[in-house]
Order: sequence, then C-alpha cells, then structure tokens
Amino acid sequence: MDLLNNYLIYLIPVFGLIGILVMAVKSAWVTKQETGDASMNQLAGYIADGAMAFLRAEWKILGYFVVVAGLLLAYSGTTVATSSPVIAVSFLIGAFLSAFAGFIGMRIATKANVRTTQAAKSSLAQALKVSFTGGTVMGLGVAGLAIIGLGSLFIVFYQVYVVQVAGSSVNGEAMAKALDVLAGFSLGAESIALFARVGGGIYTKAADVGADLVGKVEAGIPEDDVRNPATIADNVGDNVGDVAGMGADLFGSYVATMLATMVLGREIVSPDNFGGIAPVLLPMVIAGLGLIFSIVGASMVKIKKETDSVQKALNIGNWTSIILTAIATYFVVMWMLPDGNFHLTRDVIPGTTDLKAGSLVFTKTGVFMSILVGLVVGTLMSIITEYYTAMGKRPVMSIIKQSSTGHATNIIGGLAIGMESTVLPILVLAAGIYGSYFFAGLYGVAIAAAGMMATTAMQLAIDAFGPIADNAGGIAEMSRLPEEVRGRTDNLDAVGNTTAATGKGFAIASAALTSLALFAAFVGVAGIEHIDIYKANVLAGLFVGGMIPFIFSALAISAVGRAAMAMVEEVRRQFREIPGIMEYKAKPEYEKCVAISTKASIREMVAPGMIALITPIVIGFAFGPEVLGGLLAGVTVSGVLMGIFQSNAGGAWDNAKKSFEKGVEINGEIYYKKSEPHKASVTGDTVGDPFKDTSGPSMNILIKLMSIVSLVIAPHLNKADNNSKFIQKQEKVQSMITHVIKTDKKA
Amino acid sequence: MDLLNNYLIYLIPVFGLIGILVMAVKSAWVTKQETGDASMNQLAGYIADGAMAFLRAEWKILGYFVVVAGLLLAYSGTTVATSSPVIAVSFLIGAFLSAFAGFIGMRIATKANVRTTQAAKSSLAQALKVSFTGGTVMGLGVAGLAIIGLGSLFIVFYQVYVVQVAGSSVNGEAMAKALDVLAGFSLGAESIALFARVGGGIYTKAADVGADLVGKVEAGIPEDDVRNPATIADNVGDNVGDVAGMGADLFGSYVATMLATMVLGREIVSPDNFGGIAPVLLPMVIAGLGLIFSIVGASMVKIKKETDSVQKALNIGNWTSIILTAIATYFVVMWMLPDGNFHLTRDVIPGTTDLKAGSLVFTKTGVFMSILVGLVVGTLMSIITEYYTAMGKRPVMSIIKQSSTGHATNIIGGLAIGMESTVLPILVLAAGIYGSYFFAGLYGVAIAAAGMMATTAMQLAIDAFGPIADNAGGIAEMSRLPEEVRGRTDNLDAVGNTTAATGKGFAIASAALTSLALFAAFVGVAGIEHIDIYKANVLAGLFVGGMIPFIFSALAISAVGRAAMAMVEEVRRQFREIPGIMEYKAKPEYEKCVAISTKASIREMVAPGMIALITPIVIGFAFGPEVLGGLLAGVTVSGVLMGIFQSNAGGAWDNAKKSFEKGVEINGEIYYKKSEPHKASVTGDTVGDPFKDTSGPSMNILIKLMSIVSLVIAPHLNKADNNSKFIQKQEKVQSMITHVIKTDKKA
Repeated sequence: MDLLNNYLIYLIPVFGLIGILVMAVKSAWVTKQETGDASMNQLAGYIADGAMAFLRAEWKILGYFVVVAGLLLAYSGTTVATSSPVIAVSFLIGAFLSAFAGFIGMRIATKANVRTTQAAKSSLAQALKVSFTGGTVMGLGVAGLAIIGLGSLFIVFYQVYVVQVAGSSVNGEAMAKALDVLAGFSLGAESIALFARVGGGIYTKAADVGADLVGKVEAGIPEDDVRNPATIADNVGDNVGDVAGMGADLFGSYVATMLATMVLGREIVSPDNFGGIAPVLLPMVIAGLGLIFSIVGASMVKIKKETDSVQKALNIGNWTSIILTAIATYFVVMWMLPDGNFHLTRDVIPGTTDLKAGSLVFTKTGVFMSILVGLVVGTLMSIITEYYTAMGKRPVMSIIKQSSTGHATNIIGGLAIGMESTVLPILVLAAGIYGSYFFAGLYGVAIAAAGMMATTAMQLAIDAFGPIADNAGGIAEMSRLPEEVRGRTDNLDAVGNTTAATGKGFAIASAALTSLALFAAFVGVAGIEHIDIYKANVLAGLFVGGMIPFIFSALAISAVGRAAMAMVEEVRRQFREIPGIMEYKAKPEYEKCVAISTKASIREMVAPGMIALITPIVIGFAFGPEVLGGLLAGVTVSGVLMGIFQSNAGGAWDNAKKSFEKGVEINGEIYYKKSEPHKASVTGDTVGDPFKDTSGPSMNILIKLMSIVSLVIAPHLNKADNNSKFIQKQEKVQSMITHVIKTDKKA
Repeated sequence: MDLLNNYLIYLIPVFGLIGILVMAVKSAWVTKQETGDASMNQLAGYIADGAMAFLRAEWKILGYFVVVAGLLLAYSGTTVATSSPVIAVSFLIGAFLSAFAGFIGMRIATKANVRTTQAAKSSLAQALKVSFTGGTVMGLGVAGLAIIGLGSLFIVFYQVYVVQVAGSSVNGEAMAKALDVLAGFSLGAESIALFARVGGGIYTKAADVGADLVGKVEAGIPEDDVRNPATIADNVGDNVGDVAGMGADLFGSYVATMLATMVLGREIVSPDNFGGIAPVLLPMVIAGLGLIFSIVGASMVKIKKETDSVQKALNIGNWTSIILTAIATYFVVMWMLPDGNFHLTRDVIPGTTDLKAGSLVFTKTGVFMSILVGLVVGTLMSIITEYYTAMGKRPVMSIIKQSSTGHATNIIGGLAIGMESTVLPILVLAAGIYGSYFFAGLYGVAIAAAGMMATTAMQLAIDAFGPIADNAGGIAEMSRLPEEVRGRTDNLDAVGNTTAATGKGFAIASAALTSLALFAAFVGVAGIEHIDIYKANVLAGLFVGGMIPFIFSALAISAVGRAAMAMVEEVRRQFREIPGIMEYKAKPEYEKCVAISTKASIREMVAPGMIALITPIVIGFAFGPEVLGGLLAGVTVSGVLMGIFQSNAGGAWDNAKKSFEKGVEINGEIYYKKSEPHKASVTGDTVGDPFKDTSGPSMNILIKLMSIVSLVIAPHLNKADNNSKFIQKQEKVQSMITHVIKTDKKA
C-alpha cells in the first residue's frame, strides 16, 4: 500500500495510456471493417479528403497563432516570480494535444461513416457496433491524451519546482509556480478549442446554407446530391462541427476542471499519505477512474435483435460508467483524503493560524457529496435539454402549432421557447453551485465539475456516434441503397439527434461549472479578498462582461451569413465554368468549396476570438483583478444564458421541422412536408442553424477561455487595493475642476 | 434669502403646480380646436371610447391589486421600527397619481389626434402645433403630478417623523423612517407602470396582429378599414402602448430616481442652510427646474413654413430645455450644497468619526459633474439607439440586404443587429457608472440619474407627439382626405418614428441608472457591507437574477401570441354573427374587441408581474440581503441587455420593412412593396413587434420594480451575517451524513 501511495502520481498517465491502447485496438477494428461498393467509397473519400483539407488549412493559421502566443507567454513568464517561461512549453503541448485529439476524432469519424453504412446492410446490431465503436475511439482519444498530457506535465513540474527545490513546501509558493506553469496546458487546449468550435461552427453552417441556397433553390437538385459542389463541404461540416468541435470543447473542459481543482487543492493543508498533495492529485485520479469505467460502460452498448432499443443500449452503457465511477470515487476519496476538517489557506488570517470569520470548513465526506452534486447537475441538465428539444413534447409541439399561422409566429414561438428553456437549467445550476459549495466550499465547486466530467470519454463516445450515423445515412441515400438499410441508418440517426441534444446540455453544464471553478481559482491566485459588485467599477465590469456574449453571438451569426454568401458565389461559378456537372459528366471541384468554407470560417472567427482573448487582458491590467472578476462573472452568467437560449431554440426549431416528415396534426388537420406550415418551420430551422451549431455552443468556449486567460494573467496583476488608486485619481481630477472653475470666475 | 432657505421645501410642490396649470391651459387650447367632419369625428370617437374601455377594465383589476397590496404593506409596516403602516397610504397615492397621469395622457392623445388631422388641412405648422401641444400636456401632467405627489408627501412625512419628534437627527433614524414610508409612493407608481407597460404592450400587439390576420389575410380588406371590428382596438393599442405605457414608465423612473437620491442624500452630513437636508432636497429641486425649463423648451417647438424641418424644431426645444436646466442646476448645486468634503455615513467606522479605508469623499463640484455625466449618458443612448434603428444607416441597410435571400436571413440579420446594438450602450452605461461614481460616489450615481430625468416633461412631450401624429395620419387615410393633408401627417409621422426610437433609448438608460441608484440605496437600507459574488450563494443569486429577464420576455412574447389568437376568434365571430358588416350596413362591436384585448392582456400579464413582485421577496427573506443584492445585479445587467437587444432588433426590422415603401436597391435591383424581399421584411417586422413594443420596454419596469420592492423590504430583512447561518446548516448536514454512513457500515 505504501508503494501505491508513493507511486500514485505515476499511475495517472498510465490510466491515459490504457485509454489510448484500447482506442488503438478499437480503431484498428473499425478500419478493418468492409467499406462497401465503389460509389460508397468514392463519396466517403470525398468527405475524408474534405475533412483533411479543413484540418490542413486550420493548422496553417493556428501555427502562426500558437507561435506568437507562445512567444508572448514565454516573455511574460519571465516578468513575475510565480511564473516561468516554461509556461510556453505547456501551452504548446496543450495546443498540440488538443489539435491531435481533433485529428483522431475526424479521421475515425470519416472512416466509420461508410463502414456503418456497409454494416447496416447486414443488421442494426452491427451498424450500431461500428458507429458506436467509432465514437468510442474519439472519446478515448480525447480523454486519454488529456490525462497523459496533464498527468505527465504535472509529474515533471512537481519534480522540477517542488521536489528538487530544497525546503519548498508542498502547498506553498513552489507548488503555486508548478500549477501556474501547468495552466499553460489548459490555455493551449482551450485556444485550439475556440478555433475548432467557432471556426467549425461557422464552417458547417456556411456550407449547409450555401449548399441549400444554390443547390436546392437555384439548381433544383436534391439536398445530398453529388452534383452540388458544396455537398461534400456540407457533409464535412457535420464532422467539423459535431465531432471535432464538440471534442475540442470537452477536451478543454476536462483539462480545465482538473486544473482548477488542483489549483484550489493546493490551498488545502492535508496530512495525507501522498506527500500532502492528495487534494491536488484527486481530480486526476477521478478522471483516470472515469476513463477506465467509460471503457467498461462502452463495452455494454450492444443490441441483439433488430427490434432492440438503441437508446436503451446507450443508456445502459452511460449509467454503468457513471454509477461505477461514483462508487469507485467514494472509495478513492475515503482512501486518499485524511480525516478531520479542511479549509483553504486563503481563509487563514495572515500571520496567525486562525480562520477568518465565516470561513467554511469541510470533511472528506463533504468532498464526496460535492462530486455527487456534480453528477446530478450534469444528468439533470441533459434531461432538461432533451425535454425542450425532443419531438412530441410540449415545447416542440407549441412551435409546430405556431407554424400554422406563418413564418413570423414560428420564429416568435421558437424564441419564446428558447428563452423559457433557460429557467430550469439555471435553477439546477444555481442549486448545484450552492450545494457543492455547501458541502466542500470552493474546492467542492471545482471537484463537482471534475466529478461531472469524469466520464467524458463515454459522453463523447455517445456524442460522436450521432454524426457518424448521420453521415452513414447520407451515404446510404446518395448511393441509393435498399429501403431496409436506410431504415437502419435512420433508426441510428434518430437516436443520434437525441444524444446531440443531451450532449449539448452536458457541454453547457460542464462549461459553466468549469468557469466557476476557474473563477474560484482565479480569485485565489490573484490574491483578492472580495469581488464586490457594490463597488461602481466592479459593477461596470459586470455590465461589460454581460455584453460580451451578445457581441460574440452577433459576430458568429453574421459570419455564417457572410461565409454562406461566399459559398454561394463559388458554387455558382462552378456551375457556370465547369460544363457537364449537371449531367454527371464532370466532377465538381469539391475541394475548392471546402477551401472557401475553411478560409471564410477561419477569417471570420478572428474577431470573436480576439474579443475572448484580449478583453480579460485589457481589463485586468487597466482596472485590476477585482474589476476583472466582475467582468468574468458577467461573461459567465450572460454566456450560460445565451448558450442555453440559442442551443435550445435551435434544437426545438430543428425538431419542429423534422416532425413534419411523419406528418403533424394542427387543429384537426394533418400537415406534411411542402405544406405551408412546413415552409414556416423550415424558416425556423434555418434561423436555428447558426444558433444551435455556431453561436450557442461557442458560448462554452468563450466563458472558459476568458476564465483561463484571467487565471494565467492573475499572478501578473497588481494586487494593490484598486480603490485607493481610484481615490487618488478622483482627488486629482476634482482639484483640477475646482481650479478651472475658480480661474473662470476670475476671468 | 433666509426666507427662501427656510421655505424651499414648500416651493417644490409649487413647481409641480405650475406644470399642472400650464398643462390645463394647453389642454383647453387643444380641446377647443376644430375636430373636422362627421366621419373624422366618428372615427376619433371610436378610438376615444376604446381607450376609455381599456382604462375602465384595467382599473377594475388594478383596484383589487392595489387594495390587497396596500393591506399587505400596512400589515408589514407594523412589524419593524423603521417603517410604519402609513407606507400603505403613500403606496395608494403613488398608484392613484400614476393611473391619473395615464388617464390625462390617453385623454389628450385621443383628442389631439383628430384635431391634428383637421389642422393638417390648413398647414404643417398648425398640425405640428396641435400634435406637439397634445404631447406637452402629457409630459407636463406626468412630471407635474409626480412632483406634487412626492414633494407634498415628503413635507408631511418630514414634519411628522423628523420635525415633530423632539431630538431626532435630520439624517438619522427619523429621516430614514420618513424616506422608507415615502418609498411606498414609488412602489405604487411602478406597480401601476408594470400593468400599463406590460399589459399595454400585450394589448397593442395582440390587437395589431389579430386585426391583420383576420382583416388583411382572411377578409381581404385594407389595414385601417372601419369594417374590421379589431381596427379600433389596433388604434387604441397605439395610444395604450406608446402614450400610456411610456408615460407610466417615465413617471416611475422620474419618481424612483428622486427617491433613491434622497435615500442616499440622507446619509450625507451637510452643514448647509436648509436644516441639513440640502442633499435630500436637491433632486426634487432639480426636477422642479427641469419642469420649468421643459415648459420654456416646449414653447420653442414651432415652424413657420411648410418646408421647415420638424425634427429641427423638436431638437431646438429639447436642447433648450436641457442646456437651461444644466446651467440652472450648476447654480442651484453651488447655492444649496456647502463647501468642503462629503461622505456617506455608511463609510464611517461605527463608534468613531473615522472613515473606512478606501472610502470615497467628494465635493459639490463633483456632484455637479455627476449630473453632467447623467445628461451625457442620456443623450448618447438616444443617439446610438437612433443609429441602430434609422432608415438608411448601416444596420437597417444590412437587414434589407439580407431580406433578398428570404425570411430566415432577414430574421438572422435582425437578431445579429439587435445583439450587436448592445455594445455601445453598455460601454456608455459602464462609463457613466464609473464616471458618476468617480465624481461623487454612490450619491453621484443616483444624482446622475436624477439629472438625466430632469427634463422628463420635455422628453415625454416629444415621445407622445409621435403616436398622436400616427393616429392623425390613420384618421386622414380612413377619411380619404386630400393628398396634401396626408403628406403633412406623413411628415409628422416620420419624425415621430425617429423620436419613438430615441425615446426608447432614453427610457432604457433612465431605467438602468434608476435601478443602480435604487441598488445603492438598497445596500444602505439593508445595512450590508458588500455584495460579494465570490460567495457561492451570492453568485447563485446572480445566475437566477440573470435568468429572470429571459422568462419574463418568454412569457410576454407568448402572451402576445395567445392574446392575438383570442382576438382572431372574436373578429371571426362578429363577421359570422353580425350580418351587413362587410356592406357597411352594420357597425361592428368595436368595444367587444377592445374588451377581449384588454381582458386577455390583463390576464396574460399576471404571471410576469408576479415574478417581478414576488421573486425579490422570496429570495430576500429566504437567503438574506446579500444574495438578494446578487439577484438584483443579475436582473439589472441581463434586463438592460435584453431590453436593448429586443427594442433595437424590433426597431431595425420595422424600418427595414418601411424602407420598401419608397423602394430599396439590393444588388443593383430596386424592390418595392409586395416583392419577395418585402415579404421577408414583413416577417421580421411581425417578429419585432412584440420585441420592441411588449417584452423589450417591459425590461425597464422589471428591473426598476424589483429594485423598489427590494428597497421597500430591505428594513425587514435579517441583517445577521448570512454566512454564519450557512455554516451552521452545513455542520448539521455534514454530521448527519457522517452518521448515516457510520450506521450503514455497522449494519
């Protein structure tokens, strides 16, 4: 047992390695599945080529960004004692691993799609197996790389800054430096996530809208038609947005929650058997356990008969991994953390051993309870999101009904549902903040987020399964496969739509809790006592922060519009300049559309990205950490609200439109596709597209990235009481004014 | 001079009386103008009858509310020493005067409309004179009644609680009690405003949409056709929403800013010549001066030739009143406030005369600078709002361009513009908060709002002129008057559209600053030191607060949908059951539509209204004043953002649609009414209707009302450190959990 205690720190990357090994086995299995006939292979090849074209273009731009940002970080790392230029190294590794995880996900998704179509020729069970194994590869890749990266870097920095420095305290300045440098890893991951999520979101909707406007409307060819040069970009977009975007988002949340918990854990004086760093190690150990049990849960996802429920199989796998992780977490917490009361060092009155009045103390039981709170919050958020976006439930039905009186009432109905859908998630989140703090203080808020994120591998497997099934269905339709095959892919696709909705709820919840954990970590690192919105400057920061999600959304939404117009022009040009496309005699230049969409999306995401990166730096240095804290609170509250509003409105509009495919009853009449209410529902769906796939999910990254940037710059900020500087300025200006007035009177 | 010093307090209601006298003269002048031919008179009669029908129905419901709320207030006033059952009396007076001001406005507007039409037969100058005089009556009525009410009640309470009680200090507990009781006046005014703004907003859009859906779409008759039973309700709605709603909104802001400044002014120890209450009297004196100079400014609004610019005439009047008020305010501040440094009593360390570290001190020059900041903020907000909603400017042009690709892109364009339009107003507001605090602390924030509201009478005159001109144009069209007359009313109407937009910007700015002033007053009355969002429970409050404007908007928007459906059914019934309507042989039952719309609007506004009234009470008593402070901050930030977003999106959509009347160029082609892009723009306008006239402006009342409710309940809240209660609870639950786990293990 002593051996285990001493070497637990080295076990953490091993968890990650196990994940990557299992991933490799599963990836090899998917690759060796049959790929079907030539037509199917050709289509899948176009999509895979397009996805790679996107990654190449993205990486080229990101290369510049990463180098510049790395140099700036290295330089700034030399300016304060608690940091180091080494932070640039963790930044680069974080950025690289995040990009690499995206690459793995995209590659397996573009392989699994056509193999799922082929498998659907034999049975639903086999099709589920191929598509879900593809998703599992993505999930294990993201989680495995994150744990290996964070765990290994922590070992190195712990050795360099804490163990090797004689006399350094495990939870003092030395450890603070190690974790500050480690924060670069999270910053790198989240920066890449910003590009993947926002760029990917713009990409997918630009291609989607562009393809529809010229193909369906002008040329009169069906939606997934190989003659449309933008069709492949559209299919690539599904992978770019739903696979790579979601993967980068959760990679970022996963790393950030661990990091924030570690930063807060450092402040706990813990007489444990792990050299006093059990609270720091705990989040990584929980993540490792969650990864192992995700593998177990994923192995339970299977059906036998054609009539078995796919959703039920996914649920069994999901609940298995969550419950096993929860049980294992209980024993790990009891084993690792010592008995007695904990508190954060920031709650100690300086120079004494006494606690400040009103400080919260907690026990290891409380820590476990906080983790449970996190699991409950994640689950409830998923359920609520599903309710608001599912077919047949009250919200979607109300939009359908309002489609009968036209485009405008459909839009009004969707906007109202989106706004209404913020109520329950916010109440759950507020209760979660209250509850996790109640049980274990700020450490509790952070570890609740870590608990929620523990089974990220499983969540991502379920998420990534959706777009694979969607692509598989598209290939089946374009290749005109038999009705039976199409029925099976439709079945999987329908389940995928539900998991996409619940996945979005989970992603928002994780981003919100992650930001709050980072917020708490920021306050500690910045060394401030309060963030008092009763102060006018902090309140002004809160207002400005609240506004940022609005301008970010505005930029993202209008970027989709502009990028779609660029796509429209390219498609028109190809129809005009390449003769024979419409007669299937010439192959359209798919890769040009892909490049157009890629370039437009990368260009259009610069402005919102810069807002997220630069605002906290400007506010922090100009107005101090407390005003920055107000800004962060404003961004987080407003970002969560706008994220839920936009994602759920978009999801509800989407399913309202889809409901017309099977026919819906409005006031006693049945309406189908091409009816007037259906046309109104298409308008809602088009409005909802950038809402739910571009600006809505971007809110997750926005709030996390701004928090991480703040955490990274926190040691550099002037800790002096901002208010006294403010008063000096005020006195100066007042005496100036008095002087001017007196001079005036004399004159 | 001594005499003036001693009797200044009695001069305040005199300012109000002067306003009411001038109003009576102007009202009599409007009434004696010619009303035109029988057809015009009949139409005007229907509108006036409809407006009265609305008021009767509204008052009936409000009667119950006011009695119940008054009884609750009287009861609760007996439970704490700093309050008194007399608060119920001020509540009733505030509610009555607010309702009475609405009555005056509606009555003059429904008289001035037809008289403007008649005046337009002779000249533009005369038409402007009649319509603007009608607006002035409304403005002077609101401001006059507010000053008379607040000023007189203050005299009474000052006598009863401060002067008559031997040994009571002018800025101690006795004055606190006087102002606490006075807060009931503001609560009454704002409660009525809630009904007027939200109910009126639902009313006007329900009638508008309902009339269009059956009249234009089903029966195929023009928009303003006397055969449509809902047409009168539609015209009544314009008055209900734009005249009475805006009036009640500004009545509420006007009173609340004065009150909040007085509450903060009480905390200033002022060795002045006004018995030490100069800082308390100052906001009322400034309001009185603003009223007088509004009369002066209003008298400047005139044109001579047909070709003179109406907008310029309004601007000259507006700027005259603002500049004169600013100059007069300078001398009044210098005269009333003593030299030397001020501070708030809450900044004194208890038991000493020393100030807390970092406390802000300020001078009378600083107070004047804060007032200037308020004037600048109000002006900038109006200008920005105009930019985002004006024809021919970039925002509206971009929506027009996006209408060429259909309904969905028009909606996306408008939503993006609405979101983008939050940036500048929020930056102005944040700078305003920072600046006014910089110059005179929290008193500065409050007096900045008071300065901005000083010329409320003039602002309202300009606001109310718009719907009068609009109605005049409608009557001219329905009566088929000559092109020349119609041209003149069109001219006035176009100017009215601009002033409606700038008025909305002003109303939002005033609501935001008012809420912040009330927020600052609340903190003082509740006796708390910080509102620290670093505390988990306060942060949870911030989240819940941020969500409330979303659910409020959702309820308001869907209420419009439901109420419009009820209207549709009533119109269909009349067409079916009353033979001869279509042949002009039978008069439709206009009053039934009016009653339907009224009942529906009053019923539908109960839920949002209850949220605004009850949430602060529940949160305040359950979680204490600090969490309530977090809630208020969340509501204010989110409410201001949602208000700007919705109002500006709606305004921009509206003018994008109107631009098609004269023809717009998109990609080299000119499009007019009935073109496809125009149809898309109509969809945007319909979506924007409830945005800009129902939910958007309701945000103003929401944030103010919740702040006032909090201020009123503040003395009743438990001032004990909430955190220690929290920790007791935590210890209890933790020991319970430990017990359960131990028992489990034994079992």
